[in-house]
Amino acid sequence: MDLLKVLNVDELAHGLANLSMFPYFEMAHYVMSVISLREQPGALEVSRVSPFACWFSSMLFCFGGAVLSGIMLAEPPIAPLSNCTSVLMATAVWYLVFYCPWDLLHSCVAFLPLRLVLSVMREMTRTWRVLGGVTQANMKYKDSLLVLVAIGWARGAGGGLIRNFEQLVRGVWRPETNELLKMTYPTKITLIGAVLFALQQTQHLPVQKHHLMLVYTVFLVANTARMMLTGSTASPFAAIESLIHKTLFLGYSPYAALTSDIPDSCMGQAASNSSNKGAVKMHTAASQVNGEKPPLQAKDESENTGTRRHKKTN
Amino acid sequence: MDLLKVLNVDELAHGLANLSMFPYFEMAHYVMSVISLREQPGALEVSRVSPFACWFSSMLFCFGGAVLSGIMLAEPPIAPLSNCTSVLMATAVWYLVFYCPWDLLHSCVAFLPLRLVLSVMREMTRTWRVLGGVTQANMKYKDSLLVLVAIGWARGAGGGLIRNFEQLVRGVWRPETNELLKMTYPTKITLIGAVLFALQQTQHLPVQKHHLMLVYTVFLVANTARMMLTGSTASPFAAIESLIHKTLFLGYSPYAALTSDIPDSCMGQAASNSSNKGAVKMHTAASQVNGEKPPLQAKDESENTGTRRHKKTN
Amino acid sequence: MDLLKVLNVDELAHGLANLSMFPYFEMAHYVMSVISLREQPGALEVSRVSPFACWFSSMLFCFGGAVLSGIMLAEPPIAPLSNCTSVLMATAVWYLVFYCPWDLLHSCVAFLPLRLVLSVMREMTRTWRVLGGVTQANMKYKDSLLVLVAIGWARGAGGGLIRNFEQLVRGVWRPETNELLKMTYPTKITLIGAVLFALQQTQHLPVQKHHLMLVYTVFLVANTARMMLTGSTASPFAAIESLIHKTLFLGYSPYAALTSDIPDSCMGQAASNSSNKGAVKMHTAASQVNGEKPPLQAKDESENTGTRRHKKTN
Repeated sequence: MDLLKVLNVDELAHGLANLSMFPYFEMAHYVMSVISLREQPGALEVSRVSPFACWFSSMLFCFGGAVLSGIMLAEPPIAPLSNCTSVLMATAVWYLVFYCPWDLLHSCVAFLPLRLVLSVMREMTRTWRVLGGVTQANMKYKDSLLVLVAIGWARGAGGGLIRNFEQLVRGVWRPETNELLKMTYPTKITLIGAVLFALQQTQHLPVQKHHLMLVYTVFLVANTARMMLTGSTASPFAAIESLIHKTLFLGYSPYAALTSDIPDSCMGQAASNSSNKGAVKMHTAASQVNGEKPPLQAKDESENTGTRRHKKTN
Repeated sequence: MDLLKVLNVDELAHGLANLSMFPYFEMAHYVMSVISLREQPGALEVSRVSPFACWFSSMLFCFGGAVLSGIMLAEPPIAPLSNCTSVLMATAVWYLVFYCPWDLLHSCVAFLPLRLVLSVMREMTRTWRVLGGVTQANMKYKDSLLVLVAIGWARGAGGGLIRNFEQLVRGVWRPETNELLKMTYPTKITLIGAVLFALQQTQHLPVQKHHLMLVYTVFLVANTARMMLTGSTASPFAAIESLIHKTLFLGYSPYAALTSDIPDSCMGQAASNSSNKGAVKMHTAASQVNGEKPPLQAKDESENTGTRRHKKTN
Repeated sequence: MDLLKVLNVDELAHGLANLSMFPYFEMAHYVMSVISLREQPGALEVSRVSPFACWFSSMLFCFGGAVLSGIMLAEPPIAPLSNCTSVLMATAVWYLVFYCPWDLLHSCVAFLPLRLVLSVMREMTRTWRVLGGVTQANMKYKDSLLVLVAIGWARGAGGGLIRNFEQLVRGVWRPETNELLKMTYPTKITLIGAVLFALQQTQHLPVQKHHLMLVYTVFLVANTARMMLTGSTASPFAAIESLIHKTLFLGYSPYAALTSDIPDSCMGQAASNSSNKGAVKMHTAASQVNGEKPPLQAKDESENTGTRRHKKTN
């Protein structure tokens, strides 16, 4: 029975590894990416005033990972544009999401079961994108673990990592936040995937690639479905993150209790430097230690309220 | 008679195609580019306080296209700096435009006939730059139409496309506008040229290269001369753009009539998101449909008043 | 006696040229770079809220030169990450500077003699970084003087040159200033070094490489020690810069006396363009001619007061 079970899992893993992402899964990725863009504040207005800027933003949402990993490896960031079929598909999706008569496509995708299916299909492409990045990096930097992780991460979550510059295309500039300062769930899960696939590639993780693909994909899909069906935004890593943060990154003593020990130069600079737009205030860390939401987090959550149920994904 | 006419046009086209842009036409391009920079608000002050930043900005105006197309093709963006002669010419022009005793050069170029000649010569270099970009792209991405268009466009209008970053060098940051959001005439005409030359290169347009160069150059020159002599800023494409916009990009119904059908989330987000600096307001699109100038356009036109007659070109 | 002297200097120069920067001098560079980051307003708070963003910033401070020169030469900017040993060393330094129990490392480095030694060791690495950049550029652009200078400069002072983008990682955006607009001492001295090494490489400067390394390093070390021990921030080039500025870059007449001759369009644009955030005001140049501190400089000096004695270096 166990052997049969293992054989079935192995076959399933092989089947998944050989599954082609083109065209349906890629299409789902484009649809959910462009829907994600549409739900950004101001994006609809930009689509009416400047369709070209809107199209360019959509392409960055769809192909941002390939662009970013290309830049990091000194390969042409224009390369995704050479795949005419994919670009035409993404363009067709962009047009239908923003300009479809009676807003048909957007209304259909708002229907939860369909949105769930598309989100799940999209999450499956994440596995392929991360793996593609790790493989691409391994050709130039064989067995260089950090590079493999960085490129796998960029390829899988590039659209979010270059968010500031994609917003700039639409005339929006929000320097006070970015994906490094405040990582969203998709970016975190992609980073974890990149680490796992890089460890596997460099033989540090003794699992076979297709098994890891199966496990990672199942984890992605299960979490996405859970978050969409329950409406919960709680990250599955929240407890571990909190533990690691409190253990390793609170500095030379519990931050709140020893604010008086922080050199005056730091406090004075932080307090007086009013031109330091977007600097995270010192009480933020203290409030986090005390369990309160820091101002930045509270502000982001209130902005996200309108899109919470539909999961801003990347 | 007709045969003679054709032979003459053919000879003219060949003559134009074999015309060397160096040194006079290139010099005209540098002069008009640096003059363009000088007419930017605050540029003269920067030249007095930080000549180096001013020089760097000038080089971005002069060689921005080559830099941008290099970045997009993963070729060294530093490459233009290796052409010492061109850089020295551009540097000499920069110095004379900003620091010439009695501001001689700037005053001369303010003289309309001379400015007209220089502008016409500069527009002629645009053909060579676009064609250079298309050819450069074709070596790496043979027959990939979208890439050829993108690189040709970047090479021809790069200085304008990287405007935000050139302004950043001078300590100016205006995220609410860029050439994708609000294309100026030079950027549009360069895009059209890039499309034509890319179609010709990929054998989709059944014309010979030197004929296309002649037609495109004549069109550029004629329009430039018309706009400078009449003081008109009306784009020759305004009617076509308006038609395409109203037909394809107004969304799921006439926008003005159905603003009430736009999901509340979008309207609410657009209205309340005060941190969304530079988001284009919804009534902009509606007002455009109704023939009014949208606020962004009105604001830009009032800022451009002082330079309208002299045509901020790129 | 003279011959012995020369032989000793020659041996010293050879010894210095063969000195390995790894691991002690590199370590000193990482320590001073991360300390430099920590002393930025708001950096400590970011380290508590987002350790990852803090780590990324630190890596940009430590390896910014290699990243920037890589981008300029279209070589992978991710390359520094492939040197696992260096990255691990820099990461360990980052952790100890920001999270060491009782802030031990930061307190030790505040001790002037130790800080002096580390700063001197760090300045020695500057020679190697500039030379490394010039050599790297010479492989692709043999004898192209401007490219050699640019890459040598980027490699040696890259961390400062990309300051705006490093600040963006921390959620800070200060477009009104950058190293091109207002060069700090480290950036200037690195530029001078890049010019000297480029001239030597292209045989325009008739000195041997190891002699030039010795002279440049001694100059760097002596100046650093002087500035730290006297608390003076006066640049050794101030007199020459002022002379060059007044001779070459004051424009078509003494600026202060002829402000009335500046075309109204420039003055009007500068005065009325309130959206031109960060434009340097016209009286800045005039005040500089009259020996007063321009507003931008005065503001920066007051912000730097808390770190003046400890020399914000790059």
